[in-house]
Amino acid sequence: MLSKSQIKLITSLKQKKYRQKHDLFVAEGVKTIKELMQSNLELYALYTTEEINIDAKNEVLISESDLKRISFLTSPNNALAVFKKPELKPINENGLIVVLDAVRDPGNLGTIIRLCDWFGIENLVCSNETVDCYNPKVIQATMGSITRVTVNYLDLVPFLKGNKSPIYGAFMDGDNVYKLNLPKSGIIVMGNEANGISKEVEAAITDKISIPRFGDMQVTESLNVATATAILLSEFKRGT
Amino acid sequence: MLSKSQIKLITSLKQKKYRQKHDLFVAEGVKTIKELMQSNLELYALYTTEEINIDAKNEVLISESDLKRISFLTSPNNALAVFKKPELKPINENGLIVVLDAVRDPGNLGTIIRLCDWFGIENLVCSNETVDCYNPKVIQATMGSITRVTVNYLDLVPFLKGNKSPIYGAFMDGDNVYKLNLPKSGIIVMGNEANGISKEVEAAITDKISIPRFGDMQVTESLNVATATAILLSEFKRGT
Repeated sequence: MLSKSQIKLITSLKQKKYRQKHDLFVAEGVKTIKELMQSNLELYALYTTEEINIDAKNEVLISESDLKRISFLTSPNNALAVFKKPELKPINENGLIVVLDAVRDPGNLGTIIRLCDWFGIENLVCSNETVDCYNPKVIQATMGSITRVTVNYLDLVPFLKGNKSPIYGAFMDGDNVYKLNLPKSGIIVMGNEANGISKEVEAAITDKISIPRFGDMQVTESLNVATATAILLSEFKRGT
Repeated sequence: MLSKSQIKLITSLKQKKYRQKHDLFVAEGVKTIKELMQSNLELYALYTTEEINIDAKNEVLISESDLKRISFLTSPNNALAVFKKPELKPINENGLIVVLDAVRDPGNLGTIIRLCDWFGIENLVCSNETVDCYNPKVIQATMGSITRVTVNYLDLVPFLKGNKSPIYGAFMDGDNVYKLNLPKSGIIVMGNEANGISKEVEAAITDKISIPRFGDMQVTESLNVATATAILLSEFKRGT
């Protein structure tokens, strides 16, 4: 049985300001919860409608109607967990760092976090306008990768200007990425879904790069930001 | 004003069987419709709530409440078009062909169609279990690319067995794709989101390939199928 105050706390975590206030976030589904439990994340509470074989002392058995009340999904799974947000590690300036300038779509951010994890990139730096990585849709899309990638939110311009590494930015009219010698350490900046990289951030970029388009059709579309990130990370890492 | 039979026809196109029966499909939103109009697709009907500067003789001005009645979106845009499905072109066996074995997610198929378009790949071949490319969510995700890529649905095993090109398949345990000499002509098979490539299709594959994972974490997750397709197409095309 859930108390009114528990329900209020959990449903409030749908909003970024309450996730920030309480330093908590929600994950749903047995698979996602199990993956998060394998990391050093601290479990705050676990609500399940049936025994799910997770070794958690703060597990509470609840009814399906109670789960519906607290779930963010239209068809709730049989488990919902509340985790404490991890403490932020400092940014490691060795190796590659991915920087996102106002990426808004939770699915795109989730995919990019999974890509960083796959390519062994420890640090993802997001502008304050980028969607929150503890947004429930991002957590659902990252599939546990969120515990292996450090995501910092900060003001990009001072961060980039204070950094000594080369700063690559993805543009429609940059140099062909397939023809460049890419370094093992550096920063890769990806822009907003509709507007690309902002003017202020562009000023800090040292190398503009592009994924060339093949085929002879003249079209204005660009690749989706998550897809472009996949291809660029593959290019940076393939020779290492 | 829309007639009952028009409403019935349009809303029926949400389902694959009626899209097949009538050889029609729906696209929504001015941007998507304009892109589709630029191709040689035949417009069957265009319904708009305001003048949208599309030169179409079969345009019908309707009320917002009528648009709500026929739209597949929760927040309808101000235009909905019905197009005739294009006639299928024969498969061109020169160059690269992408084959999908039971890809179910409309967003993934949409992204893969956009990738084929970007990388100049004319032919996408889908198993009959793959989501329909005229599904409204796929049309929304392809952003006009659907008019530049020929998508055939067929029984994969006879198609693959009747083909003389090398057949590459994406597996978790294949050869490192970064270390291979990849041909300009060939087939690249991508599997289902949860189960990968089926046993029957696997038997027809000549070269198993993998995108290596970087970093030292032992995790069982794979890359998302659209993301993996992006990286593999980039590898096949980067040297050409």
